[in-house]
Amino acid sequence: MATKIHGDELPQVLVLGSPWVLPSLESQFSHRFHFLKPSNSQFPLLQFLSSYAQSVQALLIPGGSFALTSAILDCLPSLKLAVTTSVGVDHLDLPELRRRGIAVAYAGNLYSEDVADMAVGLLIDVLRKVSAADRFLRQGLWPTNREFPLGLKLSGKRIGIVGLGKIGCEVAKRLEGFGCKMSYNSRTKKPLVPYSYHSTVHELAAECEALIVCCGLTEETRHMIDREVMVALGKDGVIINVGRGAIIDEKELIECLLQGEIGGAGLDVFENEPEIPEELFGVDNVVLSPHVAVITHESMKGLCKLVVDNLEAFFSNKPLVSPFMDGG
Amino acid sequence: MATKIHGDELPQVLVLGSPWVLPSLESQFSHRFHFLKPSNSQFPLLQFLSSYAQSVQALLIPGGSFALTSAILDCLPSLKLAVTTSVGVDHLDLPELRRRGIAVAYAGNLYSEDVADMAVGLLIDVLRKVSAADRFLRQGLWPTNREFPLGLKLSGKRIGIVGLGKIGCEVAKRLEGFGCKMSYNSRTKKPLVPYSYHSTVHELAAECEALIVCCGLTEETRHMIDREVMVALGKDGVIINVGRGAIIDEKELIECLLQGEIGGAGLDVFENEPEIPEELFGVDNVVLSPHVAVITHESMKGLCKLVVDNLEAFFSNKPLVSPFMDGG
Repeated sequence: MATKIHGDELPQVLVLGSPWVLPSLESQFSHRFHFLKPSNSQFPLLQFLSSYAQSVQALLIPGGSFALTSAILDCLPSLKLAVTTSVGVDHLDLPELRRRGIAVAYAGNLYSEDVADMAVGLLIDVLRKVSAADRFLRQGLWPTNREFPLGLKLSGKRIGIVGLGKIGCEVAKRLEGFGCKMSYNSRTKKPLVPYSYHSTVHELAAECEALIVCCGLTEETRHMIDREVMVALGKDGVIINVGRGAIIDEKELIECLLQGEIGGAGLDVFENEPEIPEELFGVDNVVLSPHVAVITHESMKGLCKLVVDNLEAFFSNKPLVSPFMDGG
Repeated sequence: MATKIHGDELPQVLVLGSPWVLPSLESQFSHRFHFLKPSNSQFPLLQFLSSYAQSVQALLIPGGSFALTSAILDCLPSLKLAVTTSVGVDHLDLPELRRRGIAVAYAGNLYSEDVADMAVGLLIDVLRKVSAADRFLRQGLWPTNREFPLGLKLSGKRIGIVGLGKIGCEVAKRLEGFGCKMSYNSRTKKPLVPYSYHSTVHELAAECEALIVCCGLTEETRHMIDREVMVALGKDGVIINVGRGAIIDEKELIECLLQGEIGGAGLDVFENEPEIPEELFGVDNVVLSPHVAVITHESMKGLCKLVVDNLEAFFSNKPLVSPFMDGG
C-alpha cells in the first residue's frame, strides 16, 4: 500500500533502463509524477540508488535486457511496486519480489494484436522473400537479373504455434484467413481450441511447415527450439520468433540457416540484444527485426495510459489495473 | 480449332518473351511440344517469325512488358491460340485478337491466393517497417541507436480495396482476421458483399487508412490513383499495389512519398519494369518488390499444369481450361 503524499510533493517513480514509453510519459505526466532517472546521473547505479532512492515506492522498468537484481532491490528499502512495460517478465526475479512484498504490474494483453500482426508479417516476409527482394531492387539488380528466387506460398500451409496464449490465439485467428491449418504446443491441452495439440515441440515441428514461437521465456522453454526440432521442421521449414531470443538455441539456428537445414527464419528477438550474430547479416533467408513486435504508435499510446493508470491506482491505494499474477 | 498433327511430329508452341514457367515446361514437356524460341535465334524477331513460324498455331507469352502487336500477329498467319501466363491481359490487343479469331487462355484465378498473401505482407511490411528494420540491423546500427522509428498498427485499420474481384476478395478475407474494416471501389456495387461501396477511388481514399490496388489496367484505370487520391488518403495513409504499375501515377507517388504527403507504399509493380525510379532507392517508407506477387514454387507448378492443360485441350480440339472471356 502506498504512503500518502505530503502537500504538493509529486510521487517519485524510479526509471530503470530506457523504456520506449518514457518520453511520452515525461511530456504528458511530469505534473503528476517525478521521474527519477539514474541514467542521467554520473554516479554508478547502486550508489545513485543508495543516495537518492531510499524513499522510492514505485519503479518503471522496460522488458528485456535490464535485469532487476537483488543488488538493486537491496538499495530500495521502500519499494512496493515494479511496473514493467513488457508482457514477458523473465527480467524480474518473481520469487524474490514476492518475498519482499513487491507487487508487479505488466503490459498484460496490450500488445497481443500488434505482436500477432508482426508474426504474420515476418512469416510472409520470410516465405515470400519480401525484404530480400527489396534489397535486390535497391541494389539495382533487377534490370540485369530478372530471375529473383521463387518464394513459398503461405495460404494453406500447416502452421505450428508454440505457446497458445493470447498472442498465439491472435496469430491463429489471422492465419485462419489465409486458409492455414493450425496445430500447437503448450504446457497443457486447451479444451476449447479446435487446433490439434502436440505435447512436444519436436512432434509439432515434424507435423508443420512453419513454427511461430509466441511463448514466454522460462527455465522450461530456454533453448526449447534446439537442433533436433529444427531438423524435424525440415529444409523448407520456417521459424518465426516473437517470444524471447533464448527460447531458440541461436547458435544452432545459425548453423541450420547457413547449412540450409531449415528454410528460413524471421526473428524479432535475439539471445543477446542488441547484439546480433554477424553471420546473419549476409544471409538472405532470414529477416531481422529489432524487438519491435510490440511497438507501434498505437501501442505506445496505450502503454502510456496503462503505466499511468497503474501508478495512479497504486498511489491512491486502489487495485492495480494490470497486476502480474504468478502462473498467469 | 487445331489441325491434326501428322505422325510423331510434335505440336509447335511459339514462346515470346521469357515466361518464368518455361524452364519447368521444357524439362517436363519437351516430349509433348516443340517449344520454338525466337530469343535463341540471331535473327530479329519478325524475320524469325516470317521464316520459321508460318505454321505455328499456338503461342505462349508472359504478362507484362512484352506486347503482342499487330506486326507480330501479321507474321503468324496460322495462329489460333495465345496462352498468357498472367491474370492481366493489358499486353494483349484483345479486339485485334478477336477480329483475327485467335482465342486467349490466361492464368484465371491461379494466383489469387498468392497475390493476396503478398498484398497483406507488403501492407504489414510498410506499416510495421519490416524491411527498413531489417536494413537497419544489417547495417549494424542497433547497438548504437536503440530507437528505431515507431510503426503503425494494422489490426482494426480501415482498408480500401480498389477492385473487388477474386484477388480483392481474397485480400479482404485475410484482413478480416486482423479485425480490419473493409470498403471498396469497383466498376459496379457488388450486391452480396458486406463491405461499403464507394463509387470513386477519391471517396474511398478519403474514408480509409490504406488502399490496396488489386484491379486490372485498362484505359479507365490508368493513373486512376493520382495526386488528388493520395492527398485524400493522407499523411499516414499507405498504398499497396499488386495490380499494374500504371494504375498509379508513379511520378506523383514519388513526390508524395518524398514530401511525406502519404505515409508509405508497398509496390510489386511499376510503370516501366524492370526500371524503377532511383529516387525510391534511398527512401525508407517504401517497400519494393520485383513483380513477384504471383510467383511461388506452388504457383509455378500450378501454372505449368494450367499451360499444358490448355495446350493439350487446344491440340485435341477440346474446350480451353481457362479461356479469357472479354469483360471477364
